Amino acid sequence: MSAIETVSEQRCFGGTQGFYTHVSEACGGPMKFAVYLPPAAENGPVPVLWYLAGLTCTAETFTIKAGAQRVASELGLALVMPDTSPRDTGIAGATGDWEFGEGAGFYLDATEAPWDQRFRMYSYVVDELPRLVQERFPFDMGRQGICGHSMGGHGALTLALRNPGRYRSLSAFAPIVAPTNVPWGQKAFPRYLGDDKKAWRKHDATALVADGARFNGSILIDQGEADNFLVNQLQPQRFETACEDAGQALELRMHPGYDHSYYFIQSFIEDHLRHHAKALAA
Amino acid sequence: MSAIETVSEQRCFGGTQGFYTHVSEACGGPMKFAVYLPPAAENGPVPVLWYLAGLTCTAETFTIKAGAQRVASELGLALVMPDTSPRDTGIAGATGDWEFGEGAGFYLDATEAPWDQRFRMYSYVVDELPRLVQERFPFDMGRQGICGHSMGGHGALTLALRNPGRYRSLSAFAPIVAPTNVPWGQKAFPRYLGDDKKAWRKHDATALVADGARFNGSILIDQGEADNFLVNQLQPQRFETACEDAGQALELRMHPGYDHSYYFIQSFIEDHLRHHAKALAA
Repeated sequence: MSAIETVSEQRCFGGTQGFYTHVSEACGGPMKFAVYLPPAAENGPVPVLWYLAGLTCTAETFTIKAGAQRVASELGLALVMPDTSPRDTGIAGATGDWEFGEGAGFYLDATEAPWDQRFRMYSYVVDELPRLVQERFPFDMGRQGICGHSMGGHGALTLALRNPGRYRSLSAFAPIVAPTNVPWGQKAFPRYLGDDKKAWRKHDATALVADGARFNGSILIDQGEADNFLVNQLQPQRFETACEDAGQALELRMHPGYDHSYYFIQSFIEDHLRHHAKALAA
Repeated sequence: MSAIETVSEQRCFGGTQGFYTHVSEACGGPMKFAVYLPPAAENGPVPVLWYLAGLTCTAETFTIKAGAQRVASELGLALVMPDTSPRDTGIAGATGDWEFGEGAGFYLDATEAPWDQRFRMYSYVVDELPRLVQERFPFDMGRQGICGHSMGGHGALTLALRNPGRYRSLSAFAPIVAPTNVPWGQKAFPRYLGDDKKAWRKHDATALVADGARFNGSILIDQGEADNFLVNQLQPQRFETACEDAGQALELRMHPGYDHSYYFIQSFIEDHLRHHAKALAA
Protein backbone atom coordinates (compact mmCIF):
# COMPACT_ATOMS: atom_id res chain seq x y z
CA MET A 1 0.00 0.00 0.00
CA SER A 2 1.71 3.14 -1.24
CA ALA A 3 1.34 6.67 0.02
CA ILE A 4 -1.41 8.91 -1.28
CA GLU A 5 -0.42 11.43 -3.91
CA THR A 6 -2.50 14.56 -4.33
CA VAL A 7 -3.72 15.20 -7.88
CA SER A 8 -5.64 18.38 -7.04
CA GLU A 9 -7.37 20.12 -4.16
CA GLN A 10 -10.03 22.77 -4.73
CA ARG A 11 -12.07 24.89 -2.37
CA CYS A 12 -15.77 24.01 -2.47
CA PHE A 13 -18.49 25.22 -0.09
CA GLY A 14 -15.84 26.19 2.45
CA GLY A 15 -14.32 22.71 2.42
CA THR A 16 -11.85 20.92 0.17
CA GLN A 17 -12.61 18.81 -2.88
CA GLY A 18 -9.55 16.66 -3.55
CA PHE A 19 -8.50 14.04 -6.08
CA TYR A 20 -5.82 11.54 -5.10
CA THR A 21 -3.92 8.57 -6.46
CA HIS A 22 -2.07 5.67 -4.91
CA VAL A 23 -0.81 2.27 -5.97
CA SER A 24 -3.31 -0.32 -4.80
CA GLU A 25 -2.31 -3.74 -3.52
CA ALA A 26 -5.82 -5.12 -3.92
CA CYS A 27 -6.12 -3.96 -7.52
CA GLY A 28 -2.47 -4.34 -8.47
CA GLY A 29 -1.96 -0.86 -9.86
CA PRO A 30 -2.67 2.84 -9.57
CA MET A 31 -6.13 3.89 -8.41
CA LYS A 32 -7.72 7.32 -8.29
CA PHE A 33 -10.28 8.48 -5.76
CA ALA A 34 -11.93 11.70 -4.61
CA VAL A 35 -12.57 13.05 -1.12
CA TYR A 36 -14.70 15.96 -0.02
CA LEU A 37 -13.72 17.34 3.38
CA PRO A 38 -16.33 19.62 4.93
CA PRO A 39 -15.28 22.72 6.90
CA ALA A 40 -16.07 20.85 10.15
CA ALA A 41 -13.06 18.61 9.47
CA GLU A 42 -10.85 21.50 10.56
CA ASN A 43 -12.11 21.00 14.11
CA GLY A 44 -11.82 17.24 14.46
CA PRO A 45 -12.87 13.88 13.04
CA VAL A 46 -15.97 13.83 10.86
CA PRO A 47 -18.25 10.98 9.78
CA VAL A 48 -17.63 9.47 6.36
CA LEU A 49 -20.05 8.66 3.55
CA TRP A 50 -18.79 6.28 0.85
CA TYR A 51 -20.31 6.81 -2.57
CA LEU A 52 -20.00 4.02 -5.16
CA ALA A 53 -20.66 5.03 -8.76
CA GLY A 54 -22.20 3.10 -11.63
CA LEU A 55 -21.16 1.58 -14.94
CA THR A 56 -18.86 3.83 -17.04
CA CYS A 57 -18.33 6.25 -14.15
CA THR A 58 -15.10 7.40 -12.50
CA ALA A 59 -14.18 9.03 -9.22
CA GLU A 60 -15.13 12.35 -10.80
CA THR A 61 -18.69 11.59 -11.90
CA PHE A 62 -20.58 12.00 -8.66
CA THR A 63 -18.04 14.55 -7.47
CA ILE A 64 -18.90 17.11 -10.15
CA LYS A 65 -22.45 16.12 -11.13
CA ALA A 66 -24.41 15.44 -7.94
CA GLY A 67 -24.31 18.77 -6.11
CA ALA A 68 -23.57 16.85 -2.92
CA GLN A 69 -20.88 19.08 -1.44
CA ARG A 70 -23.33 21.83 -0.48
CA VAL A 71 -25.23 19.56 1.88
CA ALA A 72 -22.13 17.64 3.03
CA SER A 73 -20.59 20.99 3.97
CA GLU A 74 -23.64 21.95 6.00
CA LEU A 75 -23.91 18.55 7.71
CA GLY A 76 -20.19 18.14 8.40
CA LEU A 77 -20.04 14.92 6.41
CA ALA A 78 -16.95 13.76 4.50
CA LEU A 79 -17.52 12.08 1.12
CA VAL A 80 -15.27 9.43 -0.43
CA MET A 81 -15.70 8.58 -4.11
CA PRO A 82 -13.64 5.59 -5.32
CA ASP A 83 -13.24 4.72 -8.99
CA THR A 84 -15.46 1.94 -10.36
CA SER A 85 -12.62 -0.42 -11.30
CA PRO A 86 -8.87 -0.63 -11.86
CA ARG A 87 -7.72 1.19 -15.02
CA ASP A 88 -5.18 0.57 -17.76
CA THR A 89 -5.05 -3.08 -16.78
CA GLY A 90 -3.82 -4.20 -20.18
CA ILE A 91 -6.00 -7.30 -19.87
CA ALA A 92 -7.52 -8.41 -23.18
CA GLY A 93 -11.24 -7.71 -23.14
CA ALA A 94 -11.02 -5.28 -20.19
CA THR A 95 -11.94 -2.28 -22.33
CA GLY A 96 -14.41 -1.61 -25.11
CA ASP A 97 -17.50 -2.96 -23.33
CA TRP A 98 -19.20 -0.53 -20.96
CA GLU A 99 -20.93 -3.38 -19.09
CA PHE A 100 -17.81 -5.37 -18.21
CA GLY A 101 -14.19 -4.79 -17.24
CA GLU A 102 -12.77 -1.31 -16.73
CA GLY A 103 -15.51 0.99 -15.43
CA ALA A 104 -17.57 -2.07 -14.48
CA GLY A 105 -15.87 -3.72 -11.51
CA PHE A 106 -19.14 -4.65 -9.75
CA TYR A 107 -17.51 -4.22 -6.29
CA LEU A 108 -16.50 -7.87 -6.06
CA ASP A 109 -13.23 -9.81 -5.93
CA ALA A 110 -12.96 -11.74 -9.17
CA THR A 111 -12.00 -15.37 -8.75
CA GLU A 112 -11.59 -16.23 -12.43
CA ALA A 113 -8.40 -15.64 -14.44
CA PRO A 114 -7.35 -13.21 -15.74
CA TRP A 115 -9.68 -10.89 -13.81
CA ASP A 116 -8.68 -12.16 -10.38
CA GLN A 117 -5.33 -10.35 -10.58
CA ARG A 118 -6.71 -6.82 -10.81
CA PHE A 119 -10.49 -6.75 -10.45
CA ARG A 120 -10.74 -6.84 -6.66
CA MET A 121 -12.94 -3.84 -5.90
CA TYR A 122 -14.56 -5.53 -2.90
CA SER A 123 -11.28 -5.79 -1.00
CA TYR A 124 -10.29 -2.38 -2.27
CA VAL A 125 -13.38 -0.56 -1.01
CA VAL A 126 -13.93 -2.59 2.17
CA ASP A 127 -10.34 -3.02 3.37
CA GLU A 128 -7.58 -1.18 1.56
CA LEU A 129 -9.03 2.25 0.87
CA PRO A 130 -10.47 2.70 4.39
CA ARG A 131 -7.07 1.87 5.93
CA LEU A 132 -5.42 4.30 3.55
CA VAL A 133 -7.73 7.28 3.93
CA GLN A 134 -7.98 7.11 7.71
CA GLU A 135 -4.24 7.70 7.92
CA ARG A 136 -4.50 10.82 5.81
CA PHE A 137 -7.86 12.41 6.60
CA PRO A 138 -9.61 13.34 9.88
CA PHE A 139 -12.22 10.61 9.56
CA ASP A 140 -14.22 9.08 12.38
CA MET A 141 -14.19 5.49 11.13
CA GLY A 142 -16.73 4.54 13.77
CA ARG A 143 -19.24 6.60 11.82
CA GLN A 144 -19.35 5.38 8.23
CA GLY A 145 -22.27 5.26 5.83
CA ILE A 146 -22.48 3.98 2.27
CA CYS A 147 -24.47 5.00 -0.79
CA GLY A 148 -24.31 4.21 -4.49
CA HIS A 149 -25.97 4.46 -7.87
CA SER A 150 -26.93 1.62 -10.19
CA MET A 151 -23.92 -0.78 -10.17
CA GLY A 152 -22.71 1.32 -7.23
CA GLY A 153 -26.08 0.86 -5.53
CA HIS A 154 -25.48 -2.86 -5.89
CA GLY A 155 -22.07 -2.26 -4.32
CA ALA A 156 -23.47 -0.26 -1.40
CA LEU A 157 -26.18 -2.80 -0.63
CA THR A 158 -23.96 -5.88 -0.86
CA LEU A 159 -21.02 -4.37 1.04
CA ALA A 160 -23.29 -3.21 3.86
CA LEU A 161 -25.19 -6.50 4.06
CA ARG A 162 -21.95 -8.50 4.13
CA ASN A 163 -20.26 -6.34 6.76
CA PRO A 164 -22.72 -5.91 9.63
CA GLY A 165 -21.78 -3.03 11.89
CA ARG A 166 -19.33 -1.52 9.46
CA TYR A 167 -21.75 0.99 7.94
CA ARG A 168 -24.29 2.71 10.14
CA SER A 169 -26.37 4.03 7.24
CA LEU A 170 -27.22 2.74 3.79
CA SER A 171 -28.93 4.17 0.74
CA ALA A 172 -28.98 3.75 -3.03
CA PHE A 173 -30.17 5.40 -6.22
CA ALA A 174 -31.63 3.04 -8.82
CA PRO A 175 -29.54 0.08 -7.60
CA ILE A 176 -29.03 -3.26 -9.31
CA VAL A 177 -30.66 -5.31 -6.55
CA ALA A 178 -30.72 -8.76 -8.13
CA PRO A 179 -27.76 -9.12 -10.51
CA THR A 180 -28.02 -12.90 -10.67
CA ASN A 181 -31.44 -12.47 -12.32
CA VAL A 182 -30.78 -9.63 -14.79
CA PRO A 183 -28.63 -9.25 -17.91
CA TRP A 184 -25.93 -7.04 -16.37
CA GLY A 185 -25.13 -9.57 -13.67
CA GLN A 186 -25.61 -12.58 -15.91
CA LYS A 187 -23.06 -11.12 -18.28
CA ALA A 188 -20.44 -10.05 -15.72
CA PHE A 189 -20.66 -12.66 -12.98
CA PRO A 190 -19.68 -15.76 -15.01
CA ARG A 191 -16.53 -13.99 -16.22
CA TYR A 192 -15.60 -12.58 -12.80
CA LEU A 193 -16.85 -15.40 -10.57
CA GLY A 194 -17.27 -18.52 -12.71
CA ASP A 195 -20.38 -20.52 -13.43
CA ASP A 196 -21.23 -21.68 -9.89
CA LYS A 197 -24.23 -19.54 -9.06
CA LYS A 198 -23.77 -20.21 -5.35
CA ALA A 199 -20.78 -17.88 -5.47
CA TRP A 200 -22.93 -15.21 -7.11
CA ARG A 201 -25.34 -15.01 -4.18
CA LYS A 202 -22.79 -13.20 -2.00
CA HIS A 203 -22.89 -10.42 -4.59
CA ASP A 204 -26.64 -10.14 -4.92
CA ALA A 205 -28.48 -7.96 -2.38
CA THR A 206 -31.78 -9.76 -2.81
CA ALA A 207 -30.15 -13.17 -2.40
CA LEU A 208 -28.16 -11.96 0.61
CA VAL A 209 -31.32 -10.86 2.41
CA ALA A 210 -33.06 -14.11 1.46
CA ASP A 211 -30.05 -16.00 2.84
CA GLY A 212 -30.26 -14.22 6.18
CA ALA A 213 -28.13 -11.08 5.88
CA ARG A 214 -29.56 -8.00 7.56
CA PHE A 215 -28.80 -4.31 7.75
CA ASN A 216 -29.28 -2.79 11.18
CA GLY A 217 -31.37 0.21 10.19
CA SER A 218 -33.73 1.29 7.45
CA ILE A 219 -32.40 1.22 3.89
CA LEU A 220 -33.36 4.18 1.69
CA ILE A 221 -33.74 3.56 -2.07
CA ASP A 222 -34.86 6.10 -4.67
CA GLN A 223 -35.91 4.88 -8.11
CA GLY A 224 -37.11 6.86 -11.12
CA GLU A 225 -40.12 5.46 -12.92
CA ALA A 226 -38.88 6.75 -16.30
CA ASP A 227 -35.55 4.95 -15.85
CA ASN A 228 -34.77 3.05 -19.07
CA PHE A 229 -33.15 0.26 -17.05
CA LEU A 230 -35.98 -0.18 -14.56
CA VAL A 231 -37.76 -3.14 -16.12
CA ASN A 232 -34.87 -5.18 -17.50
CA GLN A 233 -31.97 -4.49 -15.16
CA LEU A 234 -33.11 -2.98 -11.87
CA GLN A 235 -36.40 -4.58 -10.76
CA PRO A 236 -36.46 -3.07 -7.24
CA GLN A 237 -39.57 -5.05 -6.38
CA ARG A 238 -37.36 -8.15 -6.08
CA PHE A 239 -35.48 -6.53 -3.22
CA GLU A 240 -38.64 -5.06 -1.74
CA THR A 241 -40.25 -8.49 -1.58
CA ALA A 242 -37.16 -10.08 -0.04
CA CYS A 243 -37.03 -7.33 2.61
CA GLU A 244 -40.72 -7.72 3.41
CA ASP A 245 -40.32 -11.47 3.76
CA ALA A 246 -37.29 -11.01 5.99
CA GLY A 247 -38.54 -8.12 8.10
CA GLN A 248 -35.75 -5.91 6.80
CA ALA A 249 -36.64 -2.21 7.07
CA LEU A 250 -36.66 -0.55 3.66
CA GLU A 251 -38.00 2.70 2.27
CA LEU A 252 -38.34 2.38 -1.49
CA ARG A 253 -39.47 5.62 -3.08
CA MET A 254 -40.66 5.56 -6.69
CA HIS A 255 -40.45 8.89 -8.56
CA PRO A 256 -42.65 9.45 -11.60
CA GLY A 257 -40.85 11.01 -14.56
CA TYR A 258 -37.28 10.63 -13.31
CA ASP A 259 -34.67 8.69 -15.27
CA HIS A 260 -31.31 7.05 -14.47
CA SER A 261 -29.14 10.17 -14.78
CA TYR A 262 -27.44 12.56 -12.41
CA TYR A 263 -30.33 14.99 -12.97
CA PHE A 264 -32.29 12.40 -10.99
CA ILE A 265 -29.54 11.95 -8.42
CA GLN A 266 -29.04 15.66 -7.80
CA SER A 267 -32.80 16.03 -7.29
CA PHE A 268 -32.74 13.70 -4.27
CA ILE A 269 -29.15 13.72 -3.00
CA GLU A 270 -30.05 16.08 -0.16
CA ASP A 271 -32.54 13.55 1.23
CA HIS A 272 -29.87 10.85 1.14
CA LEU A 273 -27.23 12.94 2.84
CA ARG A 274 -29.67 13.89 5.60
CA HIS A 275 -30.65 10.22 5.95
CA HIS A 276 -26.99 9.35 6.48
CA ALA A 277 -26.19 12.31 8.72
CA LYS A 278 -29.06 11.42 11.02
CA ALA A 279 -27.77 7.87 11.48
CA LEU A 280 -24.18 9.04 11.79
CA ALA A 281 -24.84 11.71 14.41
CA ALA A 282 -22.51 11.11 17.34
CA MET B 1 -34.58 30.17 -38.34
CA SER B 2 -35.57 26.53 -38.15
CA ALA B 3 -37.79 24.81 -35.63
CA ILE B 4 -36.39 23.54 -32.38
CA GLU B 5 -35.68 19.82 -32.21
CA THR B 6 -35.64 18.13 -28.84
CA VAL B 7 -32.48 16.13 -28.10
CA SER B 8 -33.53 15.04 -24.62
CA GLU B 9 -35.76 16.07 -21.74
CA GLN B 10 -35.15 14.87 -18.21
CA ARG B 11 -36.97 15.45 -14.95
CA CYS B 12 -34.90 17.47 -12.49
CA PHE B 13 -36.09 18.97 -9.19
CA GLY B 14 -39.68 18.68 -10.33
CA GLY B 15 -38.98 20.60 -13.54
CA THR B 16 -37.57 19.67 -16.93
CA GLN B 17 -33.94 19.80 -18.04
CA GLY B 18 -33.92 19.79 -21.83
CA PHE B 19 -31.34 19.86 -24.60
CA TYR B 20 -32.36 21.18 -28.00
CA THR B 21 -30.94 21.84 -31.45
CA HIS B 22 -31.90 24.10 -34.33
CA VAL B 23 -30.29 25.48 -37.44
CA SER B 24 -29.12 29.00 -36.69
CA GLU B 25 -29.26 31.81 -39.21
CA ALA B 26 -26.86 33.97 -37.23
CA CYS B 27 -24.25 31.22 -36.95
CA GLY B 28 -24.95 29.53 -40.26
CA GLY B 29 -25.43 26.01 -38.96
CA PRO B 30 -26.78 23.76 -36.24
CA MET B 31 -26.58 24.99 -32.66
CA LYS B 32 -27.29 23.20 -29.40
CA PHE B 33 -28.66 24.79 -26.24
CA ALA B 34 -30.11 23.74 -22.90
CA VAL B 35 -33.16 24.98 -21.03
CA TYR B 36 -34.23 24.29 -17.47
CA LEU B 37 -37.94 24.82 -16.90
CA PRO B 38 -38.92 25.06 -13.22
CA PRO B 39 -42.18 23.52 -11.98
CA ALA B 40 -43.71 27.02 -11.85
CA ALA B 41 -43.64 27.09 -15.66
CA GLU B 42 -46.62 24.75 -15.63
CA ASN B 43 -48.72 27.59 -14.27
CA GLY B 44 -47.68 30.41 -16.59
CA PRO B 45 -44.77 32.45 -17.87
CA VAL B 46 -41.60 32.48 -15.77
CA PRO B 47 -38.61 34.85 -15.73
CA VAL B 48 -35.54 33.75 -17.67
CA LEU B 49 -31.89 33.71 -16.67
CA TRP B 50 -29.35 33.43 -19.49
CA TYR B 51 -26.11 31.71 -18.57
CA LEU B 52 -23.08 32.14 -20.83
CA ALA B 53 -20.27 29.63 -20.34
CA GLY B 54 -16.52 30.01 -20.68
CA LEU B 55 -13.72 28.84 -22.96
CA THR B 56 -13.92 25.12 -23.90
CA CYS B 57 -17.44 24.79 -22.46
CA THR B 58 -20.65 23.64 -24.13
CA ALA B 59 -24.36 23.93 -23.38
CA GLU B 60 -23.93 21.00 -21.03
CA THR B 61 -21.17 22.31 -18.78
CA PHE B 62 -23.11 24.58 -16.46
CA THR B 63 -26.18 22.41 -16.87
CA ILE B 64 -24.63 19.38 -15.20
CA LYS B 65 -21.87 20.92 -13.06
CA ALA B 66 -23.32 23.97 -11.30
CA GLY B 67 -26.12 22.55 -9.18
CA ALA B 68 -28.28 25.46 -10.33
CA GLN B 69 -31.55 23.64 -10.97
CA ARG B 70 -32.29 23.12 -7.28
CA VAL B 71 -32.48 26.84 -6.62
CA ALA B 72 -34.03 27.68 -10.00
CA SER B 73 -36.77 25.18 -9.18
CA GLU B 74 -37.42 26.81 -5.83
CA LEU B 75 -37.37 30.34 -7.24
CA GLY B 76 -39.42 29.58 -10.35
CA LEU B 77 -36.64 30.76 -12.65
CA ALA B 78 -36.01 29.32 -16.13
CA LEU B 79 -32.39 28.87 -17.20
CA VAL B 80 -31.10 29.03 -20.78
CA MET B 81 -27.61 27.76 -21.54
CA PRO B 82 -26.38 28.44 -25.11
CA ASP B 83 -23.27 26.84 -26.54
CA THR B 84 -20.10 28.96 -26.57
CA SER B 85 -19.69 29.04 -30.36
CA PRO B 86 -20.82 27.40 -33.59
CA ARG B 87 -19.49 23.85 -34.03
CA ASP B 88 -18.16 21.76 -36.89
CA THR B 89 -17.60 24.91 -38.90
CA GLY B 90 -14.96 23.33 -41.09
CA ILE B 91 -13.04 26.61 -41.05
CA ALA B 92 -9.28 26.12 -41.02
CA GLY B 93 -7.93 27.07 -37.62
CA ALA B 94 -11.33 26.90 -35.91
CA THR B 95 -10.38 23.86 -33.84
CA GLY B 96 -7.30 22.76 -31.94
CA ASP B 97 -6.84 25.96 -29.92
CA TRP B 98 -8.94 26.21 -26.76
CA GLU B 99 -8.55 30.00 -26.66
CA PHE B 100 -9.88 30.73 -30.15
CA GLY B 101 -12.51 29.45 -32.58
CA GLU B 102 -14.89 26.66 -31.65
CA GLY B 103 -15.61 26.79 -27.93
CA ALA B 104 -14.29 30.35 -27.83
CA GLY B 105 -16.81 32.58 -29.62
CA PHE B 106 -16.40 35.52 -27.21
CA TYR B 107 -20.07 36.53 -27.70
CA LEU B 108 -19.28 38.93 -30.55
CA ASP B 109 -20.09 39.14 -34.24
CA ALA B 110 -16.85 38.58 -36.11
CA THR B 111 -16.20 41.09 -38.88
CA GLU B 112 -13.08 39.46 -40.33
CA ALA B 113 -13.10 36.65 -42.87
CA PRO B 114 -13.48 33.74 -42.60
CA TRP B 115 -14.90 34.06 -39.07
CA ASP B 116 -17.62 36.57 -40.03
CA GLN B 117 -19.64 33.82 -41.74
CA ARG B 118 -20.22 31.67 -38.65
CA PHE B 119 -18.88 33.29 -35.50
CA ARG B 120 -21.77 35.60 -34.70
CA MET B 121 -22.58 34.70 -31.11
CA TYR B 122 -23.61 38.26 -30.23
CA SER B 123 -26.51 38.24 -32.70
CA TYR B 124 -27.25 34.65 -31.79
CA VAL B 125 -27.59 35.24 -28.05
CA VAL B 126 -29.11 38.74 -28.20
CA ASP B 127 -31.52 38.32 -31.14
CA GLU B 128 -32.01 34.89 -32.64
CA LEU B 129 -32.14 32.58 -29.66
CA PRO B 130 -34.52 34.80 -27.61
CA ARG B 131 -36.94 34.94 -30.56
CA LEU B 132 -36.71 31.20 -30.94
CA VAL B 133 -37.14 30.15 -27.32
CA GLN B 134 -40.02 32.49 -26.55
CA GLU B 135 -42.09 30.73 -29.20
CA ARG B 136 -41.49 27.36 -27.58
CA PHE B 137 -41.23 27.96 -23.85
CA PRO B 138 -43.46 29.83 -21.36
CA PHE B 139 -40.96 32.64 -20.84
CA ASP B 140 -41.78 36.11 -19.60
CA MET B 141 -39.38 37.99 -21.88
CA GLY B 142 -40.01 41.17 -19.92
CA ARG B 143 -38.11 39.55 -17.07
CA GLN B 144 -34.69 38.45 -18.27
CA GLY B 145 -31.41 38.33 -16.39
CA ILE B 146 -27.95 37.33 -17.57
CA CYS B 147 -24.99 35.64 -15.90
CA GLY B 148 -21.78 34.07 -17.13
CA HIS B 149 -18.40 32.61 -16.24
CA SER B 150 -15.01 33.73 -17.48
CA MET B 151 -15.43 34.33 -21.26
CA GLY B 152 -19.15 33.98 -20.52
CA GLY B 153 -18.84 36.59 -17.78
CA HIS B 154 -17.37 38.87 -20.43
CA GLY B 155 -20.40 37.99 -22.55
CA ALA B 156 -22.91 38.71 -19.79
CA LEU B 157 -21.33 42.06 -18.91
CA THR B 158 -20.94 43.31 -22.49
CA LEU B 159 -24.36 42.15 -23.69
CA ALA B 160 -26.09 43.76 -20.71
CA LEU B 161 -24.13 47.00 -20.99
CA ARG B 162 -24.87 47.25 -24.73
CA ASN B 163 -28.58 46.53 -24.42
CA PRO B 164 -29.96 48.79 -21.68
CA GLY B 165 -33.32 47.60 -20.41
CA ARG B 166 -33.04 44.17 -21.97
CA TYR B 167 -31.70 42.43 -18.87
CA ARG B 168 -33.02 43.40 -15.47
CA SER B 169 -30.27 41.60 -13.53
CA LEU B 170 -26.58 40.94 -14.19
CA SER B 171 -23.91 38.84 -12.52
CA ALA B 172 -20.69 37.04 -13.35
CA PHE B 173 -18.23 34.49 -12.03
CA ALA B 174 -14.58 35.31 -12.65
CA PRO B 175 -15.33 37.33 -15.79
CA ILE B 176 -12.89 38.59 -18.38
CA VAL B 177 -13.59 42.27 -17.75
CA ALA B 178 -10.95 43.92 -19.91
CA PRO B 179 -10.20 41.69 -22.92
CA THR B 180 -8.48 44.44 -24.87
CA ASN B 181 -5.82 44.53 -22.15
CA VAL B 182 -5.22 40.83 -21.50
CA PRO B 183 -3.80 37.94 -23.56
CA TRP B 184 -7.12 36.14 -24.21
CA GLY B 185 -8.65 39.20 -25.85
CA GLN B 186 -5.46 40.32 -27.53
CA LYS B 187 -5.25 36.92 -29.18
CA ALA B 188 -8.90 36.56 -30.25
CA PHE B 189 -10.00 40.11 -31.08
CA PRO B 190 -7.59 40.81 -33.97
CA ARG B 191 -8.70 37.63 -35.71
CA TYR B 192 -12.43 38.17 -35.08
CA LEU B 193 -12.56 41.98 -35.27
CA GLY B 194 -9.44 43.19 -37.06
CA ASP B 195 -6.69 45.44 -35.81
CA ASP B 196 -8.69 48.60 -35.18
CA LYS B 197 -8.86 48.70 -31.42
CA LYS B 198 -11.79 51.12 -31.51
CA ALA B 199 -13.96 48.19 -32.62
CA TRP B 200 -12.72 46.16 -29.67
CA ARG B 201 -14.09 48.60 -27.11
CA LYS B 202 -17.69 47.54 -27.77
CA HIS B 203 -16.65 44.09 -26.56
CA ASP B 204 -14.81 45.15 -23.43
CA ALA B 205 -16.90 45.71 -20.28
CA THR B 206 -14.38 48.06 -18.71
CA ALA B 207 -14.11 50.15 -21.89
CA LEU B 208 -17.90 50.20 -22.29
CA VAL B 209 -18.36 51.64 -18.80
CA ALA B 210 -15.55 54.14 -19.39
CA ASP B 211 -17.27 55.11 -22.65
CA GLY B 212 -20.56 55.80 -20.90
CA ALA B 213 -22.50 52.50 -20.90
CA ARG B 214 -24.40 51.77 -17.69
CA PHE B 215 -26.35 48.89 -16.20
CA ASN B 216 -29.50 49.92 -14.36
CA GLY B 217 -28.93 47.98 -11.17
CA SER B 218 -26.08 46.58 -9.11
CA ILE B 219 -23.78 44.11 -10.86
CA LEU B 220 -22.71 41.08 -8.78
CA ILE B 221 -19.29 39.56 -9.47
CA ASP B 222 -17.67 36.67 -7.58
CA GLN B 223 -13.96 36.01 -8.02
CA GLY B 224 -11.77 33.34 -6.44
CA GLU B 225 -8.43 34.53 -5.12
CA ALA B 226 -6.76 31.20 -5.98
CA ASP B 227 -7.90 31.46 -9.61
CA ASN B 228 -4.90 30.74 -11.86
CA PHE B 229 -6.17 33.27 -14.40
CA LEU B 230 -6.75 36.09 -11.94
CA VAL B 231 -3.55 38.06 -12.44
CA ASN B 232 -2.94 37.64 -16.17
CA GLN B 233 -6.40 37.34 -17.70
CA LEU B 234 -9.14 38.55 -15.37
CA GLN B 235 -7.94 41.60 -13.43
CA PRO B 236 -11.33 42.51 -11.92
CA GLN B 237 -9.88 45.65 -10.39
CA ARG B 238 -9.88 47.22 -13.86
CA PHE B 239 -13.66 46.93 -13.97
CA GLU B 240 -14.03 47.91 -10.34
CA THR B 241 -12.11 51.13 -10.95
CA ALA B 242 -14.11 51.95 -14.06
CA CYS B 243 -17.37 51.40 -12.18
CA GLU B 244 -16.20 53.55 -9.28
CA ASP B 245 -15.21 56.34 -11.66
CA ALA B 246 -18.54 56.08 -13.46
CA GLY B 247 -20.81 55.68 -10.45
CA GLN B 248 -21.87 52.22 -11.68
CA ALA B 249 -23.13 50.04 -8.81
CA LEU B 250 -21.00 46.91 -8.46
CA GLU B 251 -20.55 44.28 -5.76
CA LEU B 252 -17.23 42.53 -6.34
CA ARG B 253 -16.72 39.70 -3.86
CA MET B 254 -13.25 38.17 -3.55
CA HIS B 255 -13.15 34.61 -2.17
CA PRO B 256 -9.91 33.34 -0.61
CA GLY B 257 -8.93 29.83 -1.69
CA TYR B 258 -11.40 29.43 -4.56
CA ASP B 259 -10.21 28.74 -8.11
CA HIS B 260 -11.72 29.08 -11.61
CA SER B 261 -13.65 25.79 -11.65
CA TYR B 262 -17.25 24.72 -11.25
CA TYR B 263 -16.45 23.75 -7.65
CA PHE B 264 -16.17 27.53 -7.18
CA ILE B 265 -19.29 28.25 -9.22
CA GLN B 266 -21.46 25.70 -7.42
CA SER B 267 -20.35 27.17 -4.09
CA PHE B 268 -21.89 30.55 -4.93
CA ILE B 269 -24.53 29.86 -7.60
CA GLU B 270 -27.34 30.10 -5.06
CA ASP B 271 -26.35 33.68 -4.22
CA HIS B 272 -26.42 34.57 -7.92
CA LEU B 273 -29.79 32.98 -8.57
CA ARG B 274 -31.29 34.79 -5.59
CA HIS B 275 -29.71 38.04 -6.81
CA HIS B 276 -31.43 37.57 -10.18
CA ALA B 277 -34.75 36.36 -8.77
CA LYS B 278 -34.96 39.42 -6.55
CA ALA B 279 -34.53 41.76 -9.51
CA LEU B 280 -36.85 39.69 -11.70
CA ALA B 281 -39.70 39.48 -9.20
CA ALA B 282 -42.89 40.62 -10.89
